[in-house]
Formats: sequence, C-alpha cells, structure tokens
Amino acid sequence: MTNPRRVTFYHAPRTRASGVLTLLEELGADYELRTLDMKAGTHRARDFLSVNPLGKVPAIVHGDAVVTEQAAIYIYLADLYPEAKLSPALDDPLRGPYLRWLVLYGSSFEPAIVDRAMERDPGPQAMSPYGSYDAVMDLLTAQLRKGPYLFGKRFTAADILWATALAWTTQFKLVPPNLELLRYVERFRTRSAVVRAEAIDERLHRQVEGEFEHRTG
Amino acid sequence: MTNPRRVTFYHAPRTRASGVLTLLEELGADYELRTLDMKAGTHRARDFLSVNPLGKVPAIVHGDAVVTEQAAIYIYLADLYPEAKLSPALDDPLRGPYLRWLVLYGSSFEPAIVDRAMERDPGPQAMSPYGSYDAVMDLLTAQLRKGPYLFGKRFTAADILWATALAWTTQFKLVPPNLELLRYVERFRTRSAVVRAEAIDERLHRQVEGEFEHRTG
Ligand SMILES: N[C@@H](CCC(=O)N[C@@H](CS)C(=O)NCC(=O)O)C(=O)O
Ligand SMILES: N[C@@H](CCC(=O)N[C@@H](CS)C(=O)NCC(=O)O)C(=O)O
Repeated sequence: MTNPRRVTFYHAPRTRASGVLTLLEELGADYELRTLDMKAGTHRARDFLSVNPLGKVPAIVHGDAVVTEQAAIYIYLADLYPEAKLSPALDDPLRGPYLRWLVLYGSSFEPAIVDRAMERDPGPQAMSPYGSYDAVMDLLTAQLRKGPYLFGKRFTAADILWATALAWTTQFKLVPPNLELLRYVERFRTRSAVVRAEAIDERLHRQVEGEFEHRTG
Repeated sequence: MTNPRRVTFYHAPRTRASGVLTLLEELGADYELRTLDMKAGTHRARDFLSVNPLGKVPAIVHGDAVVTEQAAIYIYLADLYPEAKLSPALDDPLRGPYLRWLVLYGSSFEPAIVDRAMERDPGPQAMSPYGSYDAVMDLLTAQLRKGPYLFGKRFTAADILWATALAWTTQFKLVPPNLELLRYVERFRTRSAVVRAEAIDERLHRQVEGEFEHRTG
C-alpha cells in the first residue's frame, strides 16, 4: 500500500519551487518528484496545465487534491507532518503570526519586489496591496532582528519560504543588503536539509540543461 | 472573564476589510470593532502603525497575536470557530484546495487585477506571479462553474473572500462580466449574514463620512 501522506511535487530547479523542495527535505516527507523543463516549455504543455492551468510551479498533488501557490503549499505540507514541528498547531499562540508571514510573502512582499525589479511605480497607496516598498522592507528587517529566525528561536516553515526568497533577492539586490537579512540567509544555508535540497536542485538543474543542449545542439 | 476567542478587528468601511466583517458575522464571532477613518488618515497614525506597520486593513489582534493579510486572517478566524464549518478540517480532502484558493486571491488574482486597473504590462511571464490575466480569469470561471459555491455545494470562508472581491471587481469591470461570476455574487448577497454585514458597513461608512464633513466643513 502506498503511504497515505505521499505527495507528487511538480518542480523546476532554480525557481520559486526550490523552497518547496527544501521544505519537503526538512519535513522528511515522502514525495514523488516531477521535474519540468522551463526552457523546453513543459510547464505549458497540456499535461501540466491540467494540474495547474496557470502553468506555474510549485504545485503538489495529494490524493485528488491539487495545491498551488507557495504559501498554501507550505501551510498544507507543514500541517501534514506535525511531527516535524515546522508548523505551530491551531491552538498555538504563534499560529496567527505564522499564517500572517507566510501569506504576506506572496500578497505584499512579492508585489513590492516585482515593482522594484521592473522599475515601475507601485501606484496609489490604497490600491497597491503593500503600500510602500520601504515599509515592507522595514517590517521584515525588524522581524528578523529578533533572530535567529523569523519567530526568534523557533524555526518554522515560514523561514524556509523567506530565507529561500531572500537568498535570491539579496543576490539580485532587490532587497536592502542589510546584515539582518544576509546573516539570516547564511544561517539558514548551514542547515543539513537545506544543503541537501540545494544539492538536489543543482543536480536537477544540470540534468535539465544537459537534456536541453542535447536536444537543441 | 472575557471570552478567550474575542478578537479586535481593525476595519475601514468599503475596503478590503469589509470581507472580514462579513466573515466575523458568518462565524457568529465575538469581536471588538475599531473603525479607521482613511480620509482622516488614522491608518497612518502611530496607534495603528504599531499594530500594522504597513498601515493596511484588515488587521486583527487576538491575545498577543497580530494577524494581517486577508488570506491569513480568513484561515485563522475560520479555524478559530470550527463549529461554524466554514473551514475544512486539517484532514479534510478539501483542506488543500481551500488553502490554495484563499492564497491565490492575494498572490495571483490581486496582482492581475492591479495590473489591469493600472493598465500596465504584467512583465515577463516567469517573473509575474500570475502569468497571464486570461489564465487567471479562466481558472476562476471554471471553478465557479461547479457552483453554487467555489467548492460546489459546500460554502467556506474562501467564498466570502472571493464573492466580496468579485462584487467590486465586476462593478469596476476589472473581471470579465460573465454569468458565472455575476450569479455567484448575487447568490452570495442573499445570505443573511452578508446582508447584516453590508448594513453595518454602510452605517460605518456614513458615520465616518459624517464625522469627516463635520471636521472639515
Ligand atoms: N503565485 C505563484 C507564483 C509561482 C511562479 O510564478 N512560478 C514561476 C517559477 S519562479 C513559474 O512557474 N514560471 C513559469 C512561467 O510562468 O513561465 C506562487 O506563489 O506559487
Ligand atoms: N495585502 C493586503 C492589502 C490590504 C490593503 O491594501 N488594504 C487597503 C484597503 S482596501 C488599505 O488599507 N489601504 C490603506 C492605504 O494603504 O492607504 C491584504 O491582503 O490584506
């Protein structure tokens, strides 16, 4: 009999999906990996669009349930493996802040980062979902000042989402390169599950690149 | 002794916070209402910035926990009142899709709507969190075709977020005015808790406007 908690994970290396790969490693989860090749466009082929019509990774399938959107996947998977203690339980006082920070990533931080990367105006404050870029960065920096993790000593799935995102956004200078953010990323990257996930991701990246060169060269 | 589930709700009428007001009414929740006056700028005054430094509503406080960001607030509150059955339990097969649709609202739908409203380019597909406007609208319309609610017969907190948002986005023609969306909004607005919440919201709106005219006139 297959493990009832086994999930199928639709991944593409070096993308927003890489954080979910890390989460699965941190959880010690049982998963089947399906790697999409973005250069070859397999994320826009019928097979994958029947899973996620937006053609976006990460996506997971558990039983008949399809879950897309980073924060939803993190919340879902971390609750599926309570023994890994990456998710505050429903009655834990940290539950609310945990949900807040996971959701804030996609509904305030990413919009701020995309506007910054595209050098475009955030638009009227009231319409913009985040308000001002500086306010978002100040809020994040203040939260990380508590350290070593987002909620002090307690490491949660929210740290995986944030530290993974801050690794590339600091690199591309989309966030202020202050010490709080840089140290947070560094500290995160010493965790053994993170090291393991990075190695898997790099191997998959080389595989996909190799296959691409083979086909087109 | 105060009710341990009592929350403080920071609201402004006729804004993204109005859906949370409806949620609280649907849940039969015990809440203390604090209405901010956006015209007078009380959402940018020190008092409220100490709750949410982004100066955004909705925000709730429960015990020491501050929760902001619509989807996080919906997930949190609906789980806090399981007897209202607006939230599929952790082991319910609908839990994953429920989280997906709540999160998708802020991390894919709103970015698509804001780009549309500002008449600006979504940018490169891979960077854009949603991909294409049409793909998002098609996904939503297909989901609502199941009807009468987002998950068929089952009404959940996700319907409150979506129907409230679709009420104003159809009005402002930011979404395609197709029958699935229009009927969904209409049906939602006949619910007694929704009627009640709309009446409260309009009363608060008139109060805030009245005070504003009194001060400035
Ligand atoms: N809102 C989505 C964004 C996901 C996303 O944009 N993923 C990118 C990878 S970094 C993707 O799949 N891009 C493929 C494409 O759209 O071409 C989420 O939070 O999961
Ligand atoms: N990302 C936030 C957006 C909240 C938001 O933008 N609220 C608006 C009201 S519709 C607001 O508070 N605007 C005040 C302002 O920024 O001036 C969420 O999902 O809750």
